[in-house]
Amino acid sequence: MRLSHAVSAQAHELGNGLFTPIAADLFLVEERLRAMARVECTPLEALLARALGNPGKLVRPALTIACGRLFREPNAGLLSMAAAVECLHTATLIHDDIVDETEERRGGPSLHASSGRAAALLAGDYLFAQAAAVASETNNLRIMRLFADCVMKVCTGQIEENARGRTARAFLTRESYYRTIDAKTAALFTLACESGAVLGEASLSQIDALRTYGRTLGLAFQIIDDILDLTGDEELMGKPAGSDLRQGVMTLPVIYLRDEISPTTLLAAFSDDGARDRAIQEITEGARGSRAIERVHEEARDLAVSATTLLAGLPPGVCRDLLEALATLIVERDL
Amino acid sequence: MRLSHAVSAQAHELGNGLFTPIAADLFLVEERLRAMARVECTPLEALLARALGNPGKLVRPALTIACGRLFREPNAGLLSMAAAVECLHTATLIHDDIVDETEERRGGPSLHASSGRAAALLAGDYLFAQAAAVASETNNLRIMRLFADCVMKVCTGQIEENARGRTARAFLTRESYYRTIDAKTAALFTLACESGAVLGEASLSQIDALRTYGRTLGLAFQIIDDILDLTGDEELMGKPAGSDLRQGVMTLPVIYLRDEISPTTLLAAFSDDGARDRAIQEITEGARGSRAIERVHEEARDLAVSATTLLAGLPPGVCRDLLEALATLIVERDL
Repeated sequence: MRLSHAVSAQAHELGNGLFTPIAADLFLVEERLRAMARVECTPLEALLARALGNPGKLVRPALTIACGRLFREPNAGLLSMAAAVECLHTATLIHDDIVDETEERRGGPSLHASSGRAAALLAGDYLFAQAAAVASETNNLRIMRLFADCVMKVCTGQIEENARGRTARAFLTRESYYRTIDAKTAALFTLACESGAVLGEASLSQIDALRTYGRTLGLAFQIIDDILDLTGDEELMGKPAGSDLRQGVMTLPVIYLRDEISPTTLLAAFSDDGARDRAIQEITEGARGSRAIERVHEEARDLAVSATTLLAGLPPGVCRDLLEALATLIVERDL
Repeated sequence: MRLSHAVSAQAHELGNGLFTPIAADLFLVEERLRAMARVECTPLEALLARALGNPGKLVRPALTIACGRLFREPNAGLLSMAAAVECLHTATLIHDDIVDETEERRGGPSLHASSGRAAALLAGDYLFAQAAAVASETNNLRIMRLFADCVMKVCTGQIEENARGRTARAFLTRESYYRTIDAKTAALFTLACESGAVLGEASLSQIDALRTYGRTLGLAFQIIDDILDLTGDEELMGKPAGSDLRQGVMTLPVIYLRDEISPTTLLAAFSDDGARDRAIQEITEGARGSRAIERVHEEARDLAVSATTLLAGLPPGVCRDLLEALATLIVERDL
């Protein structure tokens, strides 16, 4: 089922106003990210301007701030951690793009495409360290450990994914798919939410609830990303449908579509030969409006509902409302 | 002046016995590194076995332990930090080898040569995070900040070096050379020594002395590395003379030799054309036994003397003796 334009318009409206209660905090986070990009080494400054100059939707720092503000007014540590989370996210994107040989990012060339692979690799390393340095401003060792554990988990997931051969990718199980996205996407959402709760001095059970909320939301987020990659509006997305398949990445929508695809087409889609593009086109065309995609979308919606259910016992107010609305927005977006 | 075999034999003897007073601690560090390589993800485990399975001379963790033991018996935190320093060193080598396209490391293929660039990039990222996680076991926020600052400094130095064009490299100044090696080598020696002193609960002035000792030793270490690259025994080194030049890296020996080299030869050595190998051979042949190399070696020896002078006010004993002897060994080694 393609996300309807009616829903998408709503989602955009919701999206625009969603972060209003924490807009002042997000502004300070953006200020902080801009300050990180000012350094004395000219070539590094040029790389950081490219890497940090075009921030995304700031979903992850918004999660950190909202989870912290559920419990108390934000202090400098919470804002530092929100900036650290976004900086870490940026570092992982830069290295991902090298690993996946992705040439485009956020409507422009990826950093390695514009600045060379060696420079992009080093800039990513720098931003990992910068993120750790900013996270250390929380003066909280538990946060530092969550940070390091998150990076290890992300890397482990990507190494596992990267090590799979073509056939293993074509026949990836649903369980392996979930393990991969739990590491490569949900881990950072988990860090964003859990660190906010820790810095908000929430109780153990509240921290548990927000950790699981973040993880569940991260899974839903990635599943929707994977649906959009296959069936989304090419113009809106700025890339042709089926990019994941083209990079040899198996996703839940294709796992569910597998019953309807001939093994020849499936293997051709994961091959390196001339039949690949035709096979991918066949899969993306079959995906639009299919029952399989509807089923995947339902699965993401169920995850979003699970995530919001976890918020029930937390302090009511604008931040809880924001976290609840964000879960809906994430599964109803078309971008 | 080539390091004589008499000196080298002494140096090796010294080298073999040098770490005896801290052998039990280094054994525990090696145990810890082996434990880090045991993980549940099979492809990651294979990468870590390659990356951590063939440790170097453990100079950096030895520094951490000796600097800590100067003041008190080592505790778990000191050993963790020593392991973190070696783990961080390994991570930087893996990424360096990708950036410099180095195919060999410690007598075998580099990780990206054996396992592919994407896997090596991710394994390096994992080891950065693993190093941070192990460093966090010190329960010391100051250590975490030193760690992050060190990584940022190392990356900044490498980005600056990587950004230089061929002509800029050929005419690199002595000052720029020192700034580069201060970042890419001395920063990690500084971290190794300073973190040991901090964990040994040394006084501010003692920490200052050991920080500067580490930095000075790191500079001397890199200068000797650069001499050996140009004039060392090819069989002993396991690589042909002039590897740095072949990678377009300007070093102090070549800066001092520059007066004796024609600009044509110099530019040819930093070119990408057929004249390069001949030019590099001319430079390495001219280097052996030259006054310029002797001058560079004297400069490294002076740094080693400065480093040992800084130890004068510190508690006497086997650890101070070790740090003093290590400075001598580093500038008299032939490997």
